[in-house]
Amino acid sequence: MRLPNHIGIIPDGNRRWAASRGMQKEEGYDNGINPGLSLFKLCQREGIKEVTYYGFTTDNNKRPLKQRIAFTKACIDAVKVLAKEDASLLVVGNTDSDVFPKELIPLTKRKKFGKGGIKVNFLVNYGWEWDLNNLKKCDSNKKNVANYIKSADVSRIDLIIRWGGRRRLSGFLPVQSVYSDFYIVDNYWPDFKEADFYKALEWYNNQDITLGG
Amino acid sequence: MRLPNHIGIIPDGNRRWAASRGMQKEEGYDNGINPGLSLFKLCQREGIKEVTYYGFTTDNNKRPLKQRIAFTKACIDAVKVLAKEDASLLVVGNTDSDVFPKELIPLTKRKKFGKGGIKVNFLVNYGWEWDLNNLKKCDSNKKNVANYIKSADVSRIDLIIRWGGRRRLSGFLPVQSVYSDFYIVDNYWPDFKEADFYKALEWYNNQDITLGG
Repeated sequence: MRLPNHIGIIPDGNRRWAASRGMQKEEGYDNGINPGLSLFKLCQREGIKEVTYYGFTTDNNKRPLKQRIAFTKACIDAVKVLAKEDASLLVVGNTDSDVFPKELIPLTKRKKFGKGGIKVNFLVNYGWEWDLNNLKKCDSNKKNVANYIKSADVSRIDLIIRWGGRRRLSGFLPVQSVYSDFYIVDNYWPDFKEADFYKALEWYNNQDITLGG
Repeated sequence: MRLPNHIGIIPDGNRRWAASRGMQKEEGYDNGINPGLSLFKLCQREGIKEVTYYGFTTDNNKRPLKQRIAFTKACIDAVKVLAKEDASLLVVGNTDSDVFPKELIPLTKRKKFGKGGIKVNFLVNYGWEWDLNNLKKCDSNKKNVANYIKSADVSRIDLIIRWGGRRRLSGFLPVQSVYSDFYIVDNYWPDFKEADFYKALEWYNNQDITLGG
């Protein structure tokens, strides 16, 4: 089986999941933490080398305050949970803003936890414009765009899996996603099932990867 | 019905279409020209304001010479066909390279044909890195990334329709695609049917557009 080296995760549908259970929308996020850990362990088991989680973006800050507090807390908690595993963790996002959680600032440089191993990237207050803006400070003769964006330490993504049925990137790492295969799960993220992951891998195995050639 | 302002078209599957009919792969491209015109007329009929066609990318130049000659000719012919319509045409791509067809250089500045109207963009020898590289020449205080890329005259894309079953962008306008909804048609592009277009519009009408908010 041909496996993706790097999987991108868009864990969408937390608010719709909560609403569908008669809960307040912001109560959904907390239920996305365990799925994140389950998915991490599956990646580890299958020998995936890198996984990137879409935490929240600068655009998500347009949402009501209650939701912002809840998704920020869920990101901090998810990162803490992953920091108990064997992983090499990196948080990627705009730390210049007040909404960036201070607890995560030390992780904006990659750090090894446990025995290290799988690279885990977590987007927190990430903005695609913030990411690309870094190119403006770069010598125009330097060739490889991917090396001069803010998220340069995040490699090209082979497979993006999005939960919650939407079919869009929503600002997720535009440079690393140029050739990603895009798999959609209709379940909401808090309803994550092991089978979602394996169906995505199976689908990916049947794609023809050409990178334009 | 909520219509997309701007539709991106990835007309994939020309080679597989040809192979499935026992033809040489490169014979597929020529059969993609009429579908392009049909789609243009549907966009016009429905009042779509802008449409962008993925012609070929710099990465596609890795393909065998026969195919390169065929897809380049198909792009030139497709643009000529569209130039007989009422449209405002722009060709976007790297003209510094020998593989850029000289016939299309005058169209790398937007030009009105007939009564003008719908904006039509055609990517020819387009490269996502080429596009973003322009940011390196830009003053870092200038805020809006989308205004300083090479394809700045191509607006944000609401709906991307890709024929041929693949689920990826393949380097298609990463900045304009950050929030695009992505609809996949399993048919190969030369088998384009009016119904493909209308199903995509219907699907788009049911999406919830939030731009992250």
